Amino acid sequence: MAAYLNNRFVNNEEAVLHVSDLSMQRGYAVFDYLRAINSVPIFIDDHLNRFVASAAAMHFSISKSKTELDDIIVELLRITNLPVAGVRMMYTGGYAPDFYNPVEPNLVITCNPLKLPTKEDFDKGISIITYEFQRDLPHIKSINYQMAVWLQPLLKKQLADDVLYFQNNSVTEFPRCNLFMITADDKLVTPVNNILLGITRKHILALAEGIMEIEERDIKTEELYCAKELFYASSTKRILPVIQVDGKLVADGKPGDVTKSLYYKLLELEFSITELASR
Amino acid sequence: MAAYLNNRFVNNEEAVLHVSDLSMQRGYAVFDYLRAINSVPIFIDDHLNRFVASAAAMHFSISKSKTELDDIIVELLRITNLPVAGVRMMYTGGYAPDFYNPVEPNLVITCNPLKLPTKEDFDKGISIITYEFQRDLPHIKSINYQMAVWLQPLLKKQLADDVLYFQNNSVTEFPRCNLFMITADDKLVTPVNNILLGITRKHILALAEGIMEIEERDIKTEELYCAKELFYASSTKRILPVIQVDGKLVADGKPGDVTKSLYYKLLELEFSITELASR
Repeated sequence: MAAYLNNRFVNNEEAVLHVSDLSMQRGYAVFDYLRAINSVPIFIDDHLNRFVASAAAMHFSISKSKTELDDIIVELLRITNLPVAGVRMMYTGGYAPDFYNPVEPNLVITCNPLKLPTKEDFDKGISIITYEFQRDLPHIKSINYQMAVWLQPLLKKQLADDVLYFQNNSVTEFPRCNLFMITADDKLVTPVNNILLGITRKHILALAEGIMEIEERDIKTEELYCAKELFYASSTKRILPVIQVDGKLVADGKPGDVTKSLYYKLLELEFSITELASR
Repeated sequence: MAAYLNNRFVNNEEAVLHVSDLSMQRGYAVFDYLRAINSVPIFIDDHLNRFVASAAAMHFSISKSKTELDDIIVELLRITNLPVAGVRMMYTGGYAPDFYNPVEPNLVITCNPLKLPTKEDFDKGISIITYEFQRDLPHIKSINYQMAVWLQPLLKKQLADDVLYFQNNSVTEFPRCNLFMITADDKLVTPVNNILLGITRKHILALAEGIMEIEERDIKTEELYCAKELFYASSTKRILPVIQVDGKLVADGKPGDVTKSLYYKLLELEFSITELASR
């Protein structure tokens, strides 16, 4: 397995940082994560755009262009040669002499095997709980998942697969996924405020465009309980039906037709990208 | 310079973690920081108690006892032999195979030279701004300083030395220090809710006990503007007078008598600890 550290390709075990880096001193770093099928990265332009935007929003001065990052990732995928891979790119606050003010960022790109949910996972769907919390600087994809990780024992106790954050009675997002709802009158609704705008979210909205009515708006917590369908989406999960919220079934507790239809459209889109690249 | 990594002393440059550690993957780690004068650690029992409590609150299973940690720190101070040192001990979420759920923590202890504020810094005092923000899990000393670091450019623009957080019109704490106020009727007031309980804070309260009236309670933002004296306190700053808040002078803008008196009492206490150890 290979990785990339600052200016060179290294063996995966050499992808280390000294503890004086601000990621470990102050939890100060941004990252992005994309998926590759047969070494073909999916939606790489979107991920690079968001990565560079996150770095700028965290006041990092970065030297590499998107084209350079793209080249590094393509080469890393070629070297690692995995059927399904997750590529994680991270800029950290660097080795700050005062352990506080960011200096030249460290760049680390890693590539690991990724296990995607199966068709059985899709059919089974997931159970979620809601929890009152708002992430800091939600538009930046930072490494701050403190609350998400801290909540894991609660999730296990409640036999829940994931947690949906809400604030002021509006649900926002999952720690790593975006929420979508199909209303009783067949609208596709997804939150837009105080969230990280997901890449998969963007492509799902594009796929639904013209086929169904779309609303990007706040979703009240109580709306979840009368939804026709709910699902969540991300690069690592694609689309998974939410079949239970806080112990209550969503509709009849089975994956819904709109969710299925969007899932297959997303697979088709991904297939067209990998297909095109292999020509 | 030496450090300690998991189970052994290493050279400082070997104090590295692989990027798969949850500190870098998810910003999930706790730490504590203490000061040593002539290799004598100050208030080490308090720091070890808080460190172990932070680790437990983050659901970490740690194997080292407080006595073992104490022994390691004393040995590290002996090896590094610095006149003034800062010792930072950190437990991270470890090398989690799923990059999400904590496993066996990594322990890293480092020791670096520390520059303490001078008498001139004390006489000059500091300017602060207030900012609406509440830290997550404030009672845990975690590495999450994302907002504090993110605000640094704003502080520089406003020529401020530090930022005091407030929420619901009550001020809470600085990113790395506790706030104290002397009221017009000579009470010593300090916040107690939604903050990290500082070690220096604890000892200042003990020093003031019986000498002046003490109130541990919420402080309204507007109370700052009619305070007789304000100061902040921490292991790295000891006590520094706050002479300006949001561009307004505190009283006559000079260090006050109670602040000075507590500052000298704190120095005296520290001196008695290092004195005792050198006998």
